[in-house]
Amino acid sequence: MPSVMPFATSSPMWLEPSTKPWAGVYTPRLLGDDPLVAQAADDWRRLAAQAPAAAVNRELSITTVHDLAIPADTADTDDAVDPTTQADLNDAADLPDALAQAARVVVAQAPPGPEGYAIVRDAAGNVAVVGADGAGALYGTLRLLVVGPERLLGDEDAITSAPDLTLRMLDHWDNLVPHPVMGTIERGYAGDSVFFEAGGLAQDTARIDDYGLVLASLGINAVCLNNVNVHAMESTLLRERLDLVKTIASILRRHHVATFVAVNFAAPMTVGGLDTCDPLDERVAQWWRETTDGVYAAIPDLGGYVVKADSEGQPGPFAYGRDHADGANMLAAALAPHGGTVMWRCFVYNHRQDWRDRSLDRARAAYDHFMPLDGRFADNVLLQIKHGPLDFQVHEPVSPLLLGLKRTRVALELQIAQEYTGHQWDTYFLPTAWREVLDLDVADDGGTNFSDDLASRPGSAIVAVAGVGRDWNWTGNTFSQANLYGYGRLAWDLHASGRDIAAEWATASFAGDDALSEALTAILLTSREAYENYTSPLGVGFMVTPGDHYGPNIDGYEYSPWGTYHFADRDGVGVDRTPTGSGYTEQYPPALAARYRTVATCPERLMLFFHHLRYDHVLPESGVPLIQRIYDTHFEGVEQVRAMRQRWEAVRKQIPERIRADIDRRWQAQEHNAIEWRDQVCTYFLRHSGIPDAARRTIYP
Amino acid sequence: MPSVMPFATSSPMWLEPSTKPWAGVYTPRLLGDDPLVAQAADDWRRLAAQAPAAAVNRELSITTVHDLAIPADTADTDDAVDPTTQADLNDAADLPDALAQAARVVVAQAPPGPEGYAIVRDAAGNVAVVGADGAGALYGTLRLLVVGPERLLGDEDAITSAPDLTLRMLDHWDNLVPHPVMGTIERGYAGDSVFFEAGGLAQDTARIDDYGLVLASLGINAVCLNNVNVHAMESTLLRERLDLVKTIASILRRHHVATFVAVNFAAPMTVGGLDTCDPLDERVAQWWRETTDGVYAAIPDLGGYVVKADSEGQPGPFAYGRDHADGANMLAAALAPHGGTVMWRCFVYNHRQDWRDRSLDRARAAYDHFMPLDGRFADNVLLQIKHGPLDFQVHEPVSPLLLGLKRTRVALELQIAQEYTGHQWDTYFLPTAWREVLDLDVADDGGTNFSDDLASRPGSAIVAVAGVGRDWNWTGNTFSQANLYGYGRLAWDLHASGRDIAAEWATASFAGDDALSEALTAILLTSREAYENYTSPLGVGFMVTPGDHYGPNIDGYEYSPWGTYHFADRDGVGVDRTPTGSGYTEQYPPALAARYRTVATCPERLMLFFHHLRYDHVLPESGVPLIQRIYDTHFEGVEQVRAMRQRWEAVRKQIPERIRADIDRRWQAQEHNAIEWRDQVCTYFLRHSGIPDAARRTIYP
Repeated sequence: MPSVMPFATSSPMWLEPSTKPWAGVYTPRLLGDDPLVAQAADDWRRLAAQAPAAAVNRELSITTVHDLAIPADTADTDDAVDPTTQADLNDAADLPDALAQAARVVVAQAPPGPEGYAIVRDAAGNVAVVGADGAGALYGTLRLLVVGPERLLGDEDAITSAPDLTLRMLDHWDNLVPHPVMGTIERGYAGDSVFFEAGGLAQDTARIDDYGLVLASLGINAVCLNNVNVHAMESTLLRERLDLVKTIASILRRHHVATFVAVNFAAPMTVGGLDTCDPLDERVAQWWRETTDGVYAAIPDLGGYVVKADSEGQPGPFAYGRDHADGANMLAAALAPHGGTVMWRCFVYNHRQDWRDRSLDRARAAYDHFMPLDGRFADNVLLQIKHGPLDFQVHEPVSPLLLGLKRTRVALELQIAQEYTGHQWDTYFLPTAWREVLDLDVADDGGTNFSDDLASRPGSAIVAVAGVGRDWNWTGNTFSQANLYGYGRLAWDLHASGRDIAAEWATASFAGDDALSEALTAILLTSREAYENYTSPLGVGFMVTPGDHYGPNIDGYEYSPWGTYHFADRDGVGVDRTPTGSGYTEQYPPALAARYRTVATCPERLMLFFHHLRYDHVLPESGVPLIQRIYDTHFEGVEQVRAMRQRWEAVRKQIPERIRADIDRRWQAQEHNAIEWRDQVCTYFLRHSGIPDAARRTIYP
Repeated sequence: MPSVMPFATSSPMWLEPSTKPWAGVYTPRLLGDDPLVAQAADDWRRLAAQAPAAAVNRELSITTVHDLAIPADTADTDDAVDPTTQADLNDAADLPDALAQAARVVVAQAPPGPEGYAIVRDAAGNVAVVGADGAGALYGTLRLLVVGPERLLGDEDAITSAPDLTLRMLDHWDNLVPHPVMGTIERGYAGDSVFFEAGGLAQDTARIDDYGLVLASLGINAVCLNNVNVHAMESTLLRERLDLVKTIASILRRHHVATFVAVNFAAPMTVGGLDTCDPLDERVAQWWRETTDGVYAAIPDLGGYVVKADSEGQPGPFAYGRDHADGANMLAAALAPHGGTVMWRCFVYNHRQDWRDRSLDRARAAYDHFMPLDGRFADNVLLQIKHGPLDFQVHEPVSPLLLGLKRTRVALELQIAQEYTGHQWDTYFLPTAWREVLDLDVADDGGTNFSDDLASRPGSAIVAVAGVGRDWNWTGNTFSQANLYGYGRLAWDLHASGRDIAAEWATASFAGDDALSEALTAILLTSREAYENYTSPLGVGFMVTPGDHYGPNIDGYEYSPWGTYHFADRDGVGVDRTPTGSGYTEQYPPALAARYRTVATCPERLMLFFHHLRYDHVLPESGVPLIQRIYDTHFEGVEQVRAMRQRWEAVRKQIPERIRADIDRRWQAQEHNAIEWRDQVCTYFLRHSGIPDAARRTIYP
């Protein structure tokens, strides 16, 4: 009896009760009075009430290290565990078996770090979740709820888990009122804002609460409510509309989700009545201090501010001859007394570039602006850096700024909203692309990958643009739910594999046989390569409809001021970012720079990002001329879509009708889109090169 | 003492009082009680009150042939003038000299046709305007007011004038409420609707009255109030919002402007509750009859309906397997009892074309759809046909449908709104382009031109998309006022020259010396060729930003479903519309077909509209290879803009500050735009052809 809408107004996504027979088996039993422990138990009971009835009944004990009287800092000291406490535990005969066993495990292995948890199963099958704190108890319980004890524990009696990063955040690009072009969510493809409606609170506040549960089930612990492009209306969130933030924060807090607000750097002028927003002007600093004091008086646990300054028309410190450290530190000083954080975005570049000047390169911008400032930022500033140097294209190299900063806290910024990756219409499993970022061998020596590098730097964070709206299924395309799920999983565990994420999502979301989850998993794992194949070739990017960013427009950004060019002519295509061109390659650590600057070693999927090649240049990896590779990948992309669609056809009957019909529509559209992309790209390059397809497939003249 | 806003809320355009010293010289004196004669006198007095004071005082007698008791049908009969009447006139010693003289002139020369007038000046300088009817009296008076007796009469004592076409109309593409993409006026570049506001009447009804005067000053006698794309809201103009039409019609009627309404062919379904709009279904016909009876009960002199059916997504008869004669005649039957007219647009084509299929040609569509129906339309149907076969591009050949129809009334449709011609931002004098249409030698034999051909066909009409909005100067760019002026002049006199129109407009609009009017005239006369030169080359069209239709995007429509392609590749560019291509040329009369199908005789400015040529093809007219001609025209276009701007600089101090500052801004933008067009087009073709500029000017690689 599969359900699809146990939430009041929406799909439960991976919290689908019909996939969770264990929910009804376990009865939560609480120890201590941590409100997050109580929330964990409530969440479990809520799902259990809608899950299949169970014949057996077991105990699920939920508590924290603190309430079990285990010293939380065991792992952090060289001292032995306090013998008294351990003795107390050993003597605790009235504890349930599982809990007692859990206590012993945790003490023996050292408690997990902040927000972490241990999950222990006793011989009778009873389970205990022991959080390092209330959040850990909540996360452990929900993780158990989503995947179930068998999959989670396997053959083990106990596992422990703790997040790799302390701040795991979503940025909502939500507007308080519809923007004339962008609508209620900038780059939103899944309906209106979950938070806002007509300048105020969304009527359906139960939906915000559901969203809190969804976030907690992934371990996401922070959300910025509003668009980084902060319009006049949204600037009032700091003052006149502060109650709106307070109300939403009070709902999200129940799920251990901290609230951030995106602020406009010019707010002292636009809402404060000053004639400047110079970060070194004391009146400006004072305005921010007073405003921030007011904000924290209402919301003492606010996460902080998100800032997009001097970017795409937003105001910033450059107007006053100040640099971004000046700007960020001024805000940081206002937030510091309250424990707040500045998330300062590094998406700073000249968006009025002259396409005629080939010496300019937007890809250089973030590194050029911010590397010289390394070490100058306050402790409560994080630089929020997009994963690639451009803007969430289908395939980009990792931003060299992410690799370069050594004395500055960084937040890796990803995008779940599928702005350039199919508008949550085409299926595109983003974790495949994110894994490439995280798996980058930073010194190109078989050593440290970027995951470990990031986690090892104190205070690092991860952020993603949310991609969530008020559509009944939250994400437009149901497959796009897997991107939100995958983001949460990766934010917690930077080493989670794409395959595991895909399989977990499929199993948790749809009741069905193994063939179903295998098919869904296979579709997800194919989808990124398919999309990459039929869209812009070999990393060159931006062959999309201007403004909208969907659908092919090969020259759409070629003569624009946005710094987005491929330079195709009758002889060749691609951007020379080596020292003979813009020199961008030299922003990387030496080994990577060498790899990228050399055609022979440059990854083929990034070839046109780094190099301008003749159409007849034979590519080292695939051994065919560039033009042939362009043709081949585009025909292959369409075939991959057809193959995904066929896999879907074979299992679709197991999917609830409403989801099935919606996905059917989207496959039809995606195949149409893929053919359109293939034909336009191939025709474009045939018209330019004059070189026919060696495989004699139909390319329109 | 030049003024710029004697109207309550707007520029007076060519009714600028400071340019009209004669306004204060003449005191209107009325004969008879025709309300339009009274309106003429009122209009004169209104302007005179704001015009320079005059030392002398003369009489301006205004009357009609009827009130002078001159038989209006003198010209139409072989009979001699009624001798009694003539004798009465000769005896009319108490008439003012000018009027008596006028009467004699009119009787001797035969009264002008409907809406026409005679203007006579006596030895003392007094003037009489005698209309063939009240409208004629109004038009003659206003014509005299705009250009003054000296320019109008020259050395003559008397002139007569009558319009070449009986229906001279403007189509407003105004929406009742802002369309999410198109705004309050579709393709509007001059502010909100003069008529509508927030679903109802515009608050400033004085502005509607001013607009009526503006129209009357041009002899425009009909206006369609609302957008031909009739949304649900606008469909209610036929019923729930009929009072809105009635109110506006009552204002326009004072100025002899008839009101039309654009209707949605599916209105019987969308507002009538029927399940069909099949034109052969009696319930549908009955709905239209009853609805139309209701409309005419409120507005007995309504002009009729404008219909865009089966076009760009609008509903139409095709859905029921009916043709457009079925559709138009059904509406005509409902209108006929009331004397109403159907303006049925022929802008019918497949807007979901496959760019891959080169055998399709949108240019063929209107002729293919409508020629087979010639002779089947009711007498009160006019087919409204755009001047070219595509859509108001910078340079198109004349629509062959306009030339082909022999047994159907036609309305030539022009566009004052500068959709593809600079968005009323770049200066572009449309009469230059319209003259080419009107001057076409239809049999290519030195005989009849299209002006005479059109005027000779009974019941022909002329229509233009208005381009007017509530901006203080009505048209965005002040120079765009000259397009409205020019349209009115040409609609009245199909042979009016572009130079005369430009000079009249300049002199009537701005008080200044001869250098000023010469400069403004020269700018207008250069502007079309300049724009043509720096935008898409040699008639190929549509190299614009999709949707917006402004600014260069050379491949913007190349892979679209809109049927708008130039087929540029590494070897050549252009559309083969000869019998080896789409065969469109064969829709023309034989001599024109032969001229167009042959490269040697095809006009160079239309070469790429009709032919796909290699870049190295030497053009017969200019004697240089195609690629070089593309480069040359684009560099020349920018130089022409600079030359226009220099002419402006030399006289700008004579222009009132508000207008001057606005025009300054627009020149700056236009020069920037022209350079952008030039560079993008030249780079695009350099990248494609690989052929450098023989003149070694800078073309970016």
